[in-house]
Order: sequence, then C-alpha cells, then structure tokens
Amino acid sequence: MQLGLSVSDSDVSSFTPLVVLELADDTKAEAITWLLNRIRDKQQNGGAELLVNQLLFPAQDDQKPNPNVFLVGSTLQRLLNGAEDVGLFKEFQDGTMRGFTYANRESFKDFNGDGEGVLSDAECQYIIKHELDTLRAKNEEHVPGYPKLKLYPGKSVVRRLQSKGVLIQYFPLHNKEDLKRLSFSWYKKFKLSFQPLDDIRHYFGEGLALYFGFLEYFTFALVPMALIGIPYYLFDWEDYDKYVLFAVFNLVWSTVFLEVWKRCSATLAYGWGTLSRKKAFEEPRAGFHGALGFNPVTGREEPVYPSSKRQLRIYLVSVPFVLLCLYLSFYVMMVYFDMEFWAINIYNENPDIATSILLFVPSIIYAVVIEIMNLLYRFAAEFLTDWENHRLESSFQNHLVLKVLVFNFVNCFASLFYIAFVMQDMVLLRQSLATLLITSQILNQVMEAFLPYWLQRRRNKKVHKRMRRLMGDKELPLLGQVQLETEMNTYLGTFDDYLEQFLLFGYVSLFSCVYPLAAVLVVLNNITEVYSDAFKMCHVFKRPFSEPATNIGVWQLAFETMSIIAVVTNCALIGLSPQMKAYFPESDTQLILIVVTIEHVLLAFKFILAFVIPDVPKHIQVNLAKLEFDSLEALKKRWKLKI
Amino acid sequence: MQLGLSVSDSDVSSFTPLVVLELADDTKAEAITWLLNRIRDKQQNGGAELLVNQLLFPAQDDQKPNPNVFLVGSTLQRLLNGAEDVGLFKEFQDGTMRGFTYANRESFKDFNGDGEGVLSDAECQYIIKHELDTLRAKNEEHVPGYPKLKLYPGKSVVRRLQSKGVLIQYFPLHNKEDLKRLSFSWYKKFKLSFQPLDDIRHYFGEGLALYFGFLEYFTFALVPMALIGIPYYLFDWEDYDKYVLFAVFNLVWSTVFLEVWKRCSATLAYGWGTLSRKKAFEEPRAGFHGALGFNPVTGREEPVYPSSKRQLRIYLVSVPFVLLCLYLSFYVMMVYFDMEFWAINIYNENPDIATSILLFVPSIIYAVVIEIMNLLYRFAAEFLTDWENHRLESSFQNHLVLKVLVFNFVNCFASLFYIAFVMQDMVLLRQSLATLLITSQILNQVMEAFLPYWLQRRRNKKVHKRMRRLMGDKELPLLGQVQLETEMNTYLGTFDDYLEQFLLFGYVSLFSCVYPLAAVLVVLNNITEVYSDAFKMCHVFKRPFSEPATNIGVWQLAFETMSIIAVVTNCALIGLSPQMKAYFPESDTQLILIVVTIEHVLLAFKFILAFVIPDVPKHIQVNLAKLEFDSLEALKKRWKLKI
Repeated sequence: MQLGLSVSDSDVSSFTPLVVLELADDTKAEAITWLLNRIRDKQQNGGAELLVNQLLFPAQDDQKPNPNVFLVGSTLQRLLNGAEDVGLFKEFQDGTMRGFTYANRESFKDFNGDGEGVLSDAECQYIIKHELDTLRAKNEEHVPGYPKLKLYPGKSVVRRLQSKGVLIQYFPLHNKEDLKRLSFSWYKKFKLSFQPLDDIRHYFGEGLALYFGFLEYFTFALVPMALIGIPYYLFDWEDYDKYVLFAVFNLVWSTVFLEVWKRCSATLAYGWGTLSRKKAFEEPRAGFHGALGFNPVTGREEPVYPSSKRQLRIYLVSVPFVLLCLYLSFYVMMVYFDMEFWAINIYNENPDIATSILLFVPSIIYAVVIEIMNLLYRFAAEFLTDWENHRLESSFQNHLVLKVLVFNFVNCFASLFYIAFVMQDMVLLRQSLATLLITSQILNQVMEAFLPYWLQRRRNKKVHKRMRRLMGDKELPLLGQVQLETEMNTYLGTFDDYLEQFLLFGYVSLFSCVYPLAAVLVVLNNITEVYSDAFKMCHVFKRPFSEPATNIGVWQLAFETMSIIAVVTNCALIGLSPQMKAYFPESDTQLILIVVTIEHVLLAFKFILAFVIPDVPKHIQVNLAKLEFDSLEALKKRWKLKI
Repeated sequence: MQLGLSVSDSDVSSFTPLVVLELADDTKAEAITWLLNRIRDKQQNGGAELLVNQLLFPAQDDQKPNPNVFLVGSTLQRLLNGAEDVGLFKEFQDGTMRGFTYANRESFKDFNGDGEGVLSDAECQYIIKHELDTLRAKNEEHVPGYPKLKLYPGKSVVRRLQSKGVLIQYFPLHNKEDLKRLSFSWYKKFKLSFQPLDDIRHYFGEGLALYFGFLEYFTFALVPMALIGIPYYLFDWEDYDKYVLFAVFNLVWSTVFLEVWKRCSATLAYGWGTLSRKKAFEEPRAGFHGALGFNPVTGREEPVYPSSKRQLRIYLVSVPFVLLCLYLSFYVMMVYFDMEFWAINIYNENPDIATSILLFVPSIIYAVVIEIMNLLYRFAAEFLTDWENHRLESSFQNHLVLKVLVFNFVNCFASLFYIAFVMQDMVLLRQSLATLLITSQILNQVMEAFLPYWLQRRRNKKVHKRMRRLMGDKELPLLGQVQLETEMNTYLGTFDDYLEQFLLFGYVSLFSCVYPLAAVLVVLNNITEVYSDAFKMCHVFKRPFSEPATNIGVWQLAFETMSIIAVVTNCALIGLSPQMKAYFPESDTQLILIVVTIEHVLLAFKFILAFVIPDVPKHIQVNLAKLEFDSLEALKKRWKLKI
C-alpha cells in the first residue's frame, strides 16, 4: 500500500528530505491519507504546506521493514515564511541581530540570490517540527479510521497521534556531508583548540551548542585550579593542614566562574539570535491529560487538570517518596561506614598489600551502589513527575530537575559531609573522595559512551549487511540511512550531561581543598567527555531536534546554589584545619566566631559581586537597547500615520 | 507685554488649565513667542499641539508678580492620542487591562459619549508633561534671543530652557473640587478604614499611591507584632531573656511581610495599568552634560560623557567621601558612649530624680545629632551624585539611594549593634533604642509636617490678603490659586518618606525583641504619618506630576536586605540570651554552633520562600499571559495577511 507521491533513490533529487515521520505499521489507510493531506494542504486551509513522500523499499526485501515511513521536506519559500512564524533572529546587514521577516529577507546578511544560506539545517528542521506540531484539528471529531482518537478544534494533530501510539516517532535526518565536515573539525583531528561551537549550533541547534560551550568553559576554568593542585599533591601529600589557601582560592573561583559564564552565554546566545527572541506561547506537553475545558489564557478548548489535584499528588506522594529515598540513601551510607570500619580493622590486624587494597573496596562498592541508586531513582522520578501531570514541559522539567538534584546531591555527598564534619577524619575524607570520584567517572564513561557505542556498532553491522545483500557494494543509500537512523536510540536531552557536570562541580568546589587532585581528575575526565559526547551525538544517537536556548536555564541556578553551599563548606573546613586551630589554642569559641564572620562576609561579597557584574556584556546591552528603541520608534510612526 | 491669547477669570471656561509654566520675568519676548508657537504647533510640524494661554494679572496689582506665567491645557482628542503615545493601559470592556488605542477608544470601559472619564486628572497632566518634555528642537541652532542657549536637532526644548534657568518651573495645577472630595475621604473624617488608594492614584498618580499603599500595609503588618509586644512590655519588663520567642516571630514576620507585599503591589499596579505597561525609552536627565556626540542606541546627537571618567569620580571621590563620613559617624558614636558613661557615673554617685533624667540626655542629644548628620549628609550625597554626571535619572537615583542608605544605616544602627554585640548590655540597648526611636520620630514629624505647614500658612495668609485687597471677599479665583501654588514648595518625591519607613523597619526587625514596644511606637507614628503626609500632599506642597510606578523599586531590595540582616541579628541576639546560655552551661562552642546552624537554616528557608511564593498572584498572571497571547496572535494574523 503506497499513498500519494513516493520517493525512491532515483527521484530523491526532487526535494531534500529533512525530517522522518514513522507511523505504526498497522496504521489504517484512511488515517494516513488524511494526515498526508493535512500536511500538504495550503496554510490558508489550515494545512502545514509541507512536502511529504513515502519511503519505498525494494520489493525483494524479505525482512519486511515498516512500510509507513515518510520523509518531510519543504520549499525554500515556505521555510523562510516559517522562520518569520517562529520568530528567528538573524544577522542584519549592519551586523546587529534582527527579527527575520520575509518582506525584508534581502537585507539579511547571508541571504544569497535564491535565499539559501540564511537558515541552517537545524533551523529548517526546527521550523518543520514547529509547523507539524502546530498543525491543528479543524472540525474533525476524531482521526479518520480511529473513532477513539478524539479531536477537537485547535488540538495539535501530531501530539494526539503521538500520545496514542499511531505516530511512533519523528526526527530530523542527518546530513552526511555536513556531519563528515563537523565531526572532522570537532573531534577527529587531535589538536589543542576550541570546539567549533558555531558549527555545532548550525548542525545541532543552540541548546546542545550551549552545553558543549559550557563543558569547554568549565574545563578551561578548572585548569588553573588543576595546575595549583598538582604541586599541592606532589609536595604536601601528608601535610593536609595546608589547605586554607586552597580553600580561599576555591571560594573566589567558584563565584567568579559562574558570573563570567552568564556573560559568555549571553554573548553566544546573542550571536545565535536566541537572546532577543520572544518565547512562543507554550503548548501543553504531549502526555498531559484531563477533562476537556477552556484554557483561561487562550480561550481555546483544551484538557484542564485542577492544580489542587496536582498539588495533592506532589505533597502526598512525591514528597514522601523523595524523603523515603533520602532515608534509604542514608541507610546505605551507614552500611558503607560499617564496611569501612570492618576493612580498617582487618588492615590494622594484619597490614599487608592485600589488606591495604581491601581498604579501597568499601568505597568502590559504595560508589557503584550510588550510581545504581541514582539510575533507579532517575526512572522513578521521571515516572512520578509524569504522573503529577504537569501542563507545560518547562514545569515538568523543573520538577524533575528538583527531584533528581536533591537526591543526587544527598546520595553523592552525604558520606563526604559526614566524614568531614561528624567524624572529622581528613585522611578518610581524602581517600573516600578520590575513590568516589574516580569510580563514578569510569562508570559514567562506560555507561554513557562505550555501551551505546557498542550496541550501535552491532546494529550498524546488521543494517549494513542487509543493505549489501540488497544493493551490492555501493555506498549506503538514503534508504539505508533512514532505516539505520530509525533504529538508533533517541538522545534524551542534555539533562544527564549537565547533571554529571553538576556533580563534578560539587566534588571540586566542596572538597577539593582536601584532595587537590580532584580538579586534575575532572579536567582529564572532561577532555575525554568532549570527545565521547561529540562522537555519541554524531554517530550513536538519532539527530535531535534543535532547541532554541538563551542560557543553560535551571542549571545556572543549580550551579549557583552549589557554589553557595561551597562557601559554607569551605569555611567550615578552614575552621576545622589544625593550622587555624593553632592560632587560637586557648579558645574554640573565638575561632568559630571568626570563621562564621568570615563566612558571612564572603557570602555578602558573593551576593554583591553577583549584583554588580552585569549579566549581559555592555556592547550587547547597547545592541538590545537599539533593537528595543527601533521597534518603539516604528510603533510611534505607525501611530502617527494612523492619526 | 502680553503674547498670544490671554486668559483672565472671565474667559477661563474656554479651556481647562492643567499645567502651569513659569518663565523667568526677564525672558526675551522673541523666546516666548517662539516657545508658545512650538507648543501650539501641529504635531506633523513637530509641535506639541497643546493649548497655552498667558495668565493676566489685574492692572491695579502693585506687587508686580511675575508676568510670564502660562497655563497649558489640551483638547480631549489630543489627550486621548497622547494616552496612546505614552502607552497607558486601561480597563477594557471584558474587565482586563489593555493598551489604550485611539482607534479602539470606544471599547474601553469608562469611555462615555465624548471621551471623558477614561483619563484621570493626573494622567492628563502626565500626558501634557510628556508632550512638553518630548518637544524637540528641529533646526534651530539656539533659543531665539539667546545665542548662548545652543540647540541641536532632537534636543528637548523644555530641558534646555530648564537647565539654563529660563524656564523656572512647570507643575500641574490642583483641582479644587477633586481635592476637597479627596481630602475629605482621605483624612478629614476620622474613622477606622483603609485609605482611598484608587482616589489617591487618580489625583496624584501611581508612584505616590503605591507609597501610601505601602505605608498602610506596613502599618497593618505591624499590628500583630504590636499586640504581642504590649503584654511583653507590661508583664516582663525586667525579664529580658524572654525574647527568644519574640525573635523567632520577628524573623518569620519580616520575610513573609515582604513577599506578600510584592503580590499586593503587583495587584495594585495591574489594576492601575502600570504592570503591563512598557517602559518608554529613557531620555538623559536634565542636569546631564558632556561633549556633543552620538548616542550608540538611538543614533541621535546627544551629550556624551565617558563612563570611565564617571567611574573615576565615583571611586576616587565619592567612595572615599562616604568612608570618611562613616568614620565621622563612628567617632560621634564614641563621643556618645563617653557621655553615656559620664551620665551613668553621676547617677551612680548620687542616684536621685534629676540624675535619673540625666541618664536619658546623652541618648537624646545623640539622636538629634544623628538626625542632623543624616540631613547634612543627604545634601552632600545629592551634590556628589549630581557631580558624578549620570546620564539617566534611574542611575542617578540608584547611586543616591545607595549612598544615603549605607550612611543612614550605619549612622542610626551602629551604636545599637555596638551595645548589643560588643558591650552585650541589654538594659542599655533597650534604653538607647527607645530614646533613639522616640526622639527621631518626634523630630521627623516636626521637620516633615509641622514646619512646612507653618511656613505654608504664613505664605497663604499673605496671598489671601493681597487677593482680598484686589478682589474683595469673593472666593479665591484661579488667578490667586495659580499665584499661591507657584510659591508653594516643591514635593521632592517619595525618597525621604521611604527612607523614614526603612529606618523604622530597621528598628523593629533588628532589635524589637529587646524592646517589644518598638512596634507599638512605629504603629502610632505611622498612623499620624498617614494623616500628616496626606495633609502635606494636599495643602503644603505643589501638586506633583504623576509617576507611573509598577512597584516600590529599589526600596523593595533595601527592605529585603534589611530583613536578611535582621535574621543574622536576631539569631545572634538569641545566642546571647541568658536563657539559651542556660541550656549549654558547660560549653559556649556548642551553643554557637547550634545558633549558626539555625541561622543558616533560616536563611536558606528565607531564600526558598522568596523563590516559591510567586511575585504576581495567579489570576493576574493569567491576565498578563492572555494579553501576551493576544498580541502574538494579532502579530501572526498580520503576517498571514502580508503573505
């Protein structure tokens, strides 16, 4: 069964496929006809006015792949109109960033004769996604052929099909040429240079480019700390009361680091045109359900779910669950300490090489258990947050991040805090910190890069083999590429990547004065992280849709909170150091008062610093003000004309 | 010499005078003719298109008042157009607030047949001020008759005339009818009720109405504290270690108080249409000077002053000056302590009534000295900030507020901190606090209300006498009213009023646990403050131009900073209390650690609370989102049409 136009490798040149749409293989023919018609229909009839063709498989293929795979493309003119719809900002002739309009398209910098060059690949795919997402039901009461798939005027067709499993997935297609070029400049030639952030943004969009920008910035920021850490490690190994200076450096570093990042990210986002872009009205997320009612803002029909019910779910189920998990985490910590004492006892009874290795075993086991608990908790948190039924994706994300952060923070750092401030055993703290850090880094690299890579290689081989049987030894054609990418894993967003950096930041900023090598380890980890993340984006996962991002969002807040906790922790560590205690031999009280005073001054200084350093560099502020001023003047002129 | 149309009391009915313009009495005739023509000229010719008439004095008046007094008014249509220009928000038929447009004027709620009722008096005057301020030079090179008063295209004519002293002042005229009605409902009938905030806003504008709203809210918020304070005072006078509970209450109160105020002010500002209003592009302030250059934002010619020079002035002159003043303040404090000891010694040698009264004398003298120093410093700070040559009024205000706040805080509270934490003498703290608070309240009321009132009465009498001589016993006519108001003092804005409330808030939130009557005193002070401020606005000062305000601005930040300091101070006071010390008889260290921990928890709780409580109430958020959504939809429709 083939509907409408179809595409095989011979007539592929007629349009550039940008997005792949996969429907369930038992989808009813009338539903497919209807959907394709709606996608192809003119905009004034409420359609998306996009090009869409079915992917045709050679008849001799006996493996029966899903026949309902469609390729979506678009004319250039439609894309340029779409760019105005989604409110893209582009570089104007005078070098400033301005909202793209179709009418003024020729005044934008990269606009060539036919209009190519203005939109990046990722932007074209983003526009198509936006047009598909906002393809709304008119007066259909249900999806043709599926009386149970109710529709109402204004409901997003794609979301309904997706939430009911008729639409299995839709994703952007890789561009082999660009990918080859990008991966060469990104990670294939081994050299000391910055990442090609603009190219990454061009290919993967702003959200991902900002993550890699942050990763790079964070790594560079750690280098001075690592450089200072090495002599500390080499020359003062047992002289662990020398860390006061290091702690002070730590404090200043973590504050300045985050403030400067804000300016960097504003500069990047301005250049990419996302800083001045207005946020579009947010649609309810795909999984949101409720009785049909009216949205108080839009006045449209839409599922409504009472906020009180959601609050009940949050406070009566989610919060107790999180608390229970935290209790469990503490319980596991206590078991770890028992194991630790047991190992120390054995070592003390019979100190040889075997038992000295045994000393590290509890920490390693604990590190592995922590990672497993984090993973399990992550699934539970996602399930619970989904069940809380948030209307907006952003609110879902915030609740998820909060749940995961609180647990991961406690799970990873509770034992270190306990060792540092309750047991006050600096030797154990250093040993435990080192083991936790190294083990979790190794586990992370394996889980995150090598495992998916290995799975992907196996899958690749299978597809390649099948293709070779069908086509002979020619290069893998579009057909094979689509089949391959359809089966690739979906990249779940930057969440886990940021979370990993957040925990690393915690290890460094909270305790690195006790174990100065921490920064060195994190720098090493992040260098390999850049390579493995880059490889994973290019070859292991499906290409993700671009996410327009202005900054790293809720993670900025998370990192700032961590840096405040770091001030408190470092001051307390300073207060505990024998060096400081030596200054006040007769009275602990005075020492504590002085440390507390210093801490308060530092915190106040931190807040003042955050307040004084402008979040956006001056020249970008001027450009933004210019934009604002121009639009005000234009508005005034319109008024004058009207009068 | 009389120019153009002139107005006497007989033909006043032809237009309603709204604003008075007073030029210097030796202004050259050609300059006056030119100015009046520019004001009357049509908008398309770059004029303000307003009505303006000279005020005529009876010929027999021998006192020779300034003849160059002009009355400015406007047609209703011009005002409605102006309302769109300045971007006023008004209540729409459906109850939401929408940007007023002349085209849709009939769809707004209070629009009657001829258009009266939509604009309040204060708004009309604000529009006229805006039109006068934005009356720009075209290609005049200087003011006619004044070759030295240079102009360049785009320069505000009024600002140039004002900065060179040709335009002495311009101010809005009181409306006798409305004023009578307002003052009756505001302060003339003595009753327990809220202030008529909407009427105040209608007559004086949003900025002032928000101040009175804040004053009222603050006073009501203090009532529970005052009620709890009274039994503390009555029954536990000497049992001053009972204040732990009170301090805890204090902490929670000061946090919740400020968070709830944000929501109240958002509600008020939404109803008044200022919350959703866009900020207009800010012009350079009147006193700003520099070499003529180009503004990077507007591209217009404008004085330019290098920011590096300003920074030099700030850091090399202003900051050292402030530090010097702080040193002086500390020096005075030390002199006060010497006096205090001297008084105590005399009392101890010979304890009788005379010497027990003498005990209070140092505090009273110190309080008076503090007030005098604050006053002097205020002038110096204003001079310095002006000399720093800030381009924008808002930046000028921020620097002024910062300078004044830092000094006033130290000047008023340093001695109390010293007594509490260095001398740890709670009896002296209480006595000093009470004397400072009561003395400063009395001084403030005298300086702020009675003195100007008395001066104003004398002036009133003079004008009334002259008028009666001229006109007989008729009611004071427009002529007299204008003359009277021209000579009234100018109200310098809400700065000093907020500053007073800020210091009172400090006394209550920092130390009231030691002297629970503080809240009672502040409540009593504020009740009279409402009356005296209301009277002063209505009868002592010139009517001020309305200031559109969304919130209390930088003062919110100031109060929040104070409430953070209050958490620290209260925790420290708790730690010092004998009650707490009794719990940990053997070790101070443990006590301090616990107090510090509690303090950190409270601060964290405070930040979380501030983060969790939304700044804008839900239903207003929905309305704002609706507005945003509608404008996005309208934009989309326009795009669709264009394509």
